[in-house]
Amino acid sequence: MAALSANQIKFIRSLSRKKFRQESGLFVAEGEKLVNEALRSSYKVRDIYKTADIGEACMERISNLSTPSPVLAVIEQKKEEPLSDFRNLADYLKQLPADALFLALDGVRDPGNFGTILRLADWFGIDTIFASPDTVELYNPKTVQATMGAIFRKSVVYGNLSEIIQQFISAGYPVYGTFLDGENIYETDHAGKNGLIVMGSESFGISDEIKKQVTHKLFIPPYPTNAQSSESLNVAIATAVICAEFRRSL
Amino acid sequence: MAALSANQIKFIRSLSRKKFRQESGLFVAEGEKLVNEALRSSYKVRDIYKTADIGEACMERISNLSTPSPVLAVIEQKKEEPLSDFRNLADYLKQLPADALFLALDGVRDPGNFGTILRLADWFGIDTIFASPDTVELYNPKTVQATMGAIFRKSVVYGNLSEIIQQFISAGYPVYGTFLDGENIYETDHAGKNGLIVMGSESFGISDEIKKQVTHKLFIPPYPTNAQSSESLNVAIATAVICAEFRRSL
Repeated sequence: MAALSANQIKFIRSLSRKKFRQESGLFVAEGEKLVNEALRSSYKVRDIYKTADIGEACMERISNLSTPSPVLAVIEQKKEEPLSDFRNLADYLKQLPADALFLALDGVRDPGNFGTILRLADWFGIDTIFASPDTVELYNPKTVQATMGAIFRKSVVYGNLSEIIQQFISAGYPVYGTFLDGENIYETDHAGKNGLIVMGSESFGISDEIKKQVTHKLFIPPYPTNAQSSESLNVAIATAVICAEFRRSL
Repeated sequence: MAALSANQIKFIRSLSRKKFRQESGLFVAEGEKLVNEALRSSYKVRDIYKTADIGEACMERISNLSTPSPVLAVIEQKKEEPLSDFRNLADYLKQLPADALFLALDGVRDPGNFGTILRLADWFGIDTIFASPDTVELYNPKTVQATMGAIFRKSVVYGNLSEIIQQFISAGYPVYGTFLDGENIYETDHAGKNGLIVMGSESFGISDEIKKQVTHKLFIPPYPTNAQSSESLNVAIATAVICAEFRRSL
């Protein structure tokens, strides 16, 4: 059994911090499912560590999980996504199928929520997710783990959301957002429709600047619809309920 | 500013561990929203600690959050819920309105998922959630925080799920569960219908024993419906999509 050196352990552990992820351009994914998905993807897997090789004590030291899994990979971050240069996005959007659906995240801060949104985007056939610069980092270990592997199949493009949305509007796409005064999502049949769905931050919702660009305000009604309470929906849950309406099919 | 004694701090910190929560019958909720909801609920709030009173350093020591909020409450656990004795549950169920909807969680282990499910249950007008004994503890700090206050309005009943489901069946309720070979949820109109929706564990789904009791197998289709990939949905996300179908209304 080849244990890792103190320096190797220190380096892998450092990748739990954003600063060191950015300096090295690397990130960590744990668990057989995630590591297998990484290997099958276009991401470059730098190193793989298995408990069987390095021992349990060593794995516990490099793992970010309270219960370490038997395998951990160090992976190279992607610098470029196909749509990273979104100045000509409108031209691209215009030639897509009639059901082309996209997500834009405006300041989603919780890594678990972000990862869960990538995972459900995968389920609902949404390939590209746009994210404002203040959205949580894609390579945060909690985001990576919450995607359950979807991170390796989705394209996440960080950028100025306002400029991105302008491209969607130029291409004739409806821009959806959820608001308390929005239209009940069940009032219109959204099944099979295209569009950009904007989801706001957990604390502040959609920012004022982006709000003005939303062309269709939606609202997920509570039950009963006249319920008076202080409840609200988690942003990943709200995203799922809306995406399901656009993707319902037999 | 009255700082807390070392013993007080030690005691509050101990409530982050299940063992000490069970011994003391207490739990912690943090943040103004949660503490206000607790005060308005039938839960007994034992103590409230504010940063303004005890100081930031003290709050950081007793808080479970990476960014402590300005208020933390120590609250008494509920020992009994209205339906805790479920031996006569069927009689109760028979006299409920035609849209009476319930959730049963079969081994949900992640406290964040559990809390998120309570929060969405609140949104969708589901008052009672049944949980198998191996479902994560209700008073886990991550569960409490993820409910965003819904914990103080919902009734959570732990017990033998098989016996509980038998009561639903006796009362003539359909028992729903999600399976890969289930019926596409969009094939039947579920809006306004009653029933018990069983959700399984993140890793193993619904257990074999409970599977036999499910009367209606459901399936949330991916998009496109013939998509071949290794994706899946988070349990809280799947719960939301199904609940939304039962609660869709104008």
